[in-house]
Amino acid sequence: MHENFKELFEPESIAIIGASHDPKKIGHTILRNLVDGGYKGRVYPVNPSGGEILGKQVYTSIGEIEEEVDVVSLAIPARFCLDAVKECAANGVKYLQVVSSGFSEVGNHKEEREIVRIARESGMRVLGPNIFGMYSSKISMNLTFSASEIKPGGVAILTQSGALGIALIGRTAVDNMGLSTIVSTGNKSDLDEADLLEYLSDHDDTKVILMYIEGIKNGRKLLPVLKKTSLKKPVIVIKSGRSERGARAAASHTGSLAGLDAIFDSVIKQCGALRAENLEEAFNWCRFLSFSPEPSGRHTVIVTNGGGIGVLATDACEKYNIELFDDQSVLKEYFEDATPSFGSTRNPIDITGGAMADDYRAALTAPVDCPDIDSTLTLYCETAVFDSDNLVPMVRTTYEKHIEAQKPVAYAIVGGESVEKAIGQLNQENLPVFRDVEPAVSCMGALYRFTEFKNRARVETKTPAINMDEINAIIDKAIADGRSFLLANEAQDVMKVSGIQVPGSHIAKNLNSAVEAAESIGYPVVMKVVSRDIIHKSDAGGLALDLQSREEVIEAYEAIMKNCRAYDPDAHITGIEVTEMVTSGLEMVVGAIKDPAFGPVVMCGLGGIYVEVMKDVAFRSYPLNEEEARRMIREIRSHPLLFGVRGEKKKDIEGLVDTILKLGAILSSCDRITDIEINPIVVYEESAGLKALDVRILLKNSKED
Amino acid sequence: MHENFKELFEPESIAIIGASHDPKKIGHTILRNLVDGGYKGRVYPVNPSGGEILGKQVYTSIGEIEEEVDVVSLAIPARFCLDAVKECAANGVKYLQVVSSGFSEVGNHKEEREIVRIARESGMRVLGPNIFGMYSSKISMNLTFSASEIKPGGVAILTQSGALGIALIGRTAVDNMGLSTIVSTGNKSDLDEADLLEYLSDHDDTKVILMYIEGIKNGRKLLPVLKKTSLKKPVIVIKSGRSERGARAAASHTGSLAGLDAIFDSVIKQCGALRAENLEEAFNWCRFLSFSPEPSGRHTVIVTNGGGIGVLATDACEKYNIELFDDQSVLKEYFEDATPSFGSTRNPIDITGGAMADDYRAALTAPVDCPDIDSTLTLYCETAVFDSDNLVPMVRTTYEKHIEAQKPVAYAIVGGESVEKAIGQLNQENLPVFRDVEPAVSCMGALYRFTEFKNRARVETKTPAINMDEINAIIDKAIADGRSFLLANEAQDVMKVSGIQVPGSHIAKNLNSAVEAAESIGYPVVMKVVSRDIIHKSDAGGLALDLQSREEVIEAYEAIMKNCRAYDPDAHITGIEVTEMVTSGLEMVVGAIKDPAFGPVVMCGLGGIYVEVMKDVAFRSYPLNEEEARRMIREIRSHPLLFGVRGEKKKDIEGLVDTILKLGAILSSCDRITDIEINPIVVYEESAGLKALDVRILLKNSKED
Repeated sequence: MHENFKELFEPESIAIIGASHDPKKIGHTILRNLVDGGYKGRVYPVNPSGGEILGKQVYTSIGEIEEEVDVVSLAIPARFCLDAVKECAANGVKYLQVVSSGFSEVGNHKEEREIVRIARESGMRVLGPNIFGMYSSKISMNLTFSASEIKPGGVAILTQSGALGIALIGRTAVDNMGLSTIVSTGNKSDLDEADLLEYLSDHDDTKVILMYIEGIKNGRKLLPVLKKTSLKKPVIVIKSGRSERGARAAASHTGSLAGLDAIFDSVIKQCGALRAENLEEAFNWCRFLSFSPEPSGRHTVIVTNGGGIGVLATDACEKYNIELFDDQSVLKEYFEDATPSFGSTRNPIDITGGAMADDYRAALTAPVDCPDIDSTLTLYCETAVFDSDNLVPMVRTTYEKHIEAQKPVAYAIVGGESVEKAIGQLNQENLPVFRDVEPAVSCMGALYRFTEFKNRARVETKTPAINMDEINAIIDKAIADGRSFLLANEAQDVMKVSGIQVPGSHIAKNLNSAVEAAESIGYPVVMKVVSRDIIHKSDAGGLALDLQSREEVIEAYEAIMKNCRAYDPDAHITGIEVTEMVTSGLEMVVGAIKDPAFGPVVMCGLGGIYVEVMKDVAFRSYPLNEEEARRMIREIRSHPLLFGVRGEKKKDIEGLVDTILKLGAILSSCDRITDIEINPIVVYEESAGLKALDVRILLKNSKED
Repeated sequence: MHENFKELFEPESIAIIGASHDPKKIGHTILRNLVDGGYKGRVYPVNPSGGEILGKQVYTSIGEIEEEVDVVSLAIPARFCLDAVKECAANGVKYLQVVSSGFSEVGNHKEEREIVRIARESGMRVLGPNIFGMYSSKISMNLTFSASEIKPGGVAILTQSGALGIALIGRTAVDNMGLSTIVSTGNKSDLDEADLLEYLSDHDDTKVILMYIEGIKNGRKLLPVLKKTSLKKPVIVIKSGRSERGARAAASHTGSLAGLDAIFDSVIKQCGALRAENLEEAFNWCRFLSFSPEPSGRHTVIVTNGGGIGVLATDACEKYNIELFDDQSVLKEYFEDATPSFGSTRNPIDITGGAMADDYRAALTAPVDCPDIDSTLTLYCETAVFDSDNLVPMVRTTYEKHIEAQKPVAYAIVGGESVEKAIGQLNQENLPVFRDVEPAVSCMGALYRFTEFKNRARVETKTPAINMDEINAIIDKAIADGRSFLLANEAQDVMKVSGIQVPGSHIAKNLNSAVEAAESIGYPVVMKVVSRDIIHKSDAGGLALDLQSREEVIEAYEAIMKNCRAYDPDAHITGIEVTEMVTSGLEMVVGAIKDPAFGPVVMCGLGGIYVEVMKDVAFRSYPLNEEEARRMIREIRSHPLLFGVRGEKKKDIEGLVDTILKLGAILSSCDRITDIEINPIVVYEESAGLKALDVRILLKNSKED
């Protein structure tokens, strides 16, 4: 993990195995792109037929090259790859870029694994297979079979998809977006996103990173690198497979484990990544974030020459969580001069359709001069009175002043041919200007998210102190018993050990002790069958609620035993649990699971049937600090219920935070637990605590689905 | 309403009052645009200074013109307008287009109303004030001060915003989008969207209508016209003020009543309008819908040369509710030939990055030939092997074949300069092609929504038969009593008259009758205070639940009387209502209100606290038919609870539909009711009915907020 991959991204020598004399072959294109791109290192075409290609001497084998080669690009049919890899390993090659396809993406896992095994034996690392190559602006290295001309700049592209990656690189040229690095990750047999991010994180030329992901193999490795990188520069992520059907298509296409998109979405945002909704949005963010200073506060103003688009921008600000500044005395002071009497100095500030370049200049100087304003959204509608020749210098000057003052500004300009011409011109000057209101506001929103992630208290995560020995002893017993789940009383014991409150309860082995337990706990009580063979208690008739008296307890005891014997005559019944009937509060669900890609993930949501129907749950990767857990809780749509609605008191949110962190700690400290769920957990008023009513703990090799 | 506005849109003669010699003045621009645009009728510049402008003889007054003028464009300062209007009225002008601003938009309502009054007296209709004019391609009439060159075509633009309208017209030129009609509605002092839609609805040259709305004044007039029009051609709507703050900004900007955006959104969709999220989307829809044939079924296939964008498109299909076709035997049969072995004939069909123009041609012929496929999404990622010169003819041929077969196809093409060039070329040929996956899928989604709206059974709305005489008698009594709301028992009587079930209940005037009532209804019962002075019963301690015995009833009676007297010693207490304690079921809320813009609107959602917190409610304009009510219910996010989850039985959805329609019928049949809400109404299993637990009916001039 701690190699810095410098020799991969800035090799002094490159060999291309499969360099071809035939200009239609990929092996020829790679060599041509490398040579034409002006790569500054030494280039060795390798082809058994020898000769010369593009004026370069061709070597018949890697062994023939006299120096050690930093990077080998392998562009030969899959069936010849293994031998080539062996030769590279034998000759001290440092990095292998396997362009060839025909491996795990078509089910050929064996040979792919073999390539990696051989490579790693000699210390060689492998990029690919099934990639289109890589590019590095610093040394003018275009080692790809994609575009021949790539504009250098500040954006790094890391793509899992070859086809889309190549198309996106083409698009960067159209958008005049400069690139620092391109890496195609392909099948990720050895090097994956995490390794490459590790390099890009400290890469000075890279201002913004754009990742296209189809599936994550090792999320636990990715998350910390993603977080570390996002603290330095924006990481913009596009991931396909958002929908259930899309996820299935992605899984069959890449062979990666798709996992639940909601979990992916939560945990990468937790690590500061900015997930874009589509390609267009991702590109807009790249251009804007690689260019714009960061805001030092939340106060945004909208300056517009049209009331209509001012309102559209206001709508978009709500969508993208941008706070509009409202101190009318300040706004009036700074914008009065630029605003005619029939305009408005209320935010959105409407300098009206009569606004000339001078009015704009005055209005756009105000946010720069005003210490209370942190960022500006500027909107311009083409009008008959505004000479559009003024547009380019106006935008240019605004940007200059704002950048000097280190304040962000985003421009949306709507109009016809002359506006289009101005946008083209500004684009050439690398000044981002958008054709519609929404992309401009979306960019500002992304900038705020990036800045706020960095500014968040970098509180260390504290692991709650839990006596894992006691918990392990409970699990030992369950495993010795051949079970892959804990019985209700065992699960409750785990809660007690962890300091999570459960209702008073007792397991009665006979009627007398059930009655005694009920009398000692106090009515009303609840009774439940305890049996390793009966998981779904209510289906079996093994549950009785709200028992108000001794008589009702006796009746319920007999009914439960009868029902459960009828349900499964072979079931071993340990006893009947008599439990305190809990006073009502807000029913929530909290849980912790081991996600196949991301490892320990905690979850919370509104309890009961609503989890399933409303899907109103939030996820986070564990570990997390208390502030992040609070943020997670506020992500639940129904969270106002916790903060008190209709005069109800605020609930014990800190208790909920504590419970979430504890579940995460238990799960991540014990390899044998795969799943903990408390559903419901009753949350009482502030400081009044919570009660875990139903706790389910599953162990590895659970037979339950 | 039934004039056809032909003389407004196709006048034979136009006079411009305020036609100016000064090329910088709006009055000059309008004349120049009209003359340069090649208007085929007679043009009369009017200006007291006389002379000639742009070679046209200037008239010093309207009276000087010898013939009757169809349309007058008024472009003079507001203070001179009234006199001009009088002169127009006196000279038999048919339509007045008031370009001048300075009326209700700056608070000058009086003069605006006066203009309309004078106009209407002589039968003259008024467009504006505060507009930029209108355009009609049929007679080459550019009577605007916006763009001088407008491309004729099939899209009509109806805009409330002048500034944005002008900018949008500019954009149509960039996008090569042809226009049939432009109307700026401005302050809508007389003619409004409904009037203008009425004309466009039957206008042969108009294929698609784009409306930009900031606020609706008369929604009840708009909705039927919108519905009638949407049955003939797509009506695409952009409305600002989606967010709360945006709505406030829009209201202050236009003086229109903003209303609740959720209601606007529901009712215009109910009338078939397609609401776009932003300008870009609206433009894309215009181009695609004015061009594409309609699908005859729900079966869509995705054809792609890249797995990655195939997955992105699959995600987008879920977002835009497009159904992907899955009959593998059919897909295999039709796509096998075009798909290499390492591709996939599963939908999304991946013909792989190696696909050449011929492969595309084969793959894109399949949907045309296959009777089971109704529409196609075609994706192309730029590759090294595909010669992009083939792109334009490929797309052209695909469109030709699909249009011949009357099947829609949407194209997304991602790539660099050569792709950009192809898109530009196709754009020139009016063949819509998109640069990203999402807009293509969004367009197809809009097309499906339009088609399905038209294809929906055009079932007449039946008004449920309700004895309004009895209901009016109840209301008469409340009003005679000086109340602006019904007492609980009165509201229940309204329910009983309407055939909506309420719990058994009795109002007891004393303790004895309370006990008698409880004994006759059967325990458990609920008791509630009945008082015109106490609206919030539980705040006053006027409510007791789950009373199980005679003793508890006695105790509760005394407690309620004591609490309520303490709460408001002056309250007149009519009695205490003893009610059946209802068995539990799914608690919903249903209601009907009079929306200030749209009139009667019905509402339903998940009951209790969730209405407020989750905002999970759906709205419809009344009247509506049963199918539309069912669709409304399915719009609630929590609707699976009604259809049965976790083995629960389906609920009485038909009963719910019936209740919704009845509330709408009561509200719309009685001017004096402003608001009916049943919260909660308990919904039982299918055919088992519902019970309205708490019914609130408010009357006009309600003192309650």
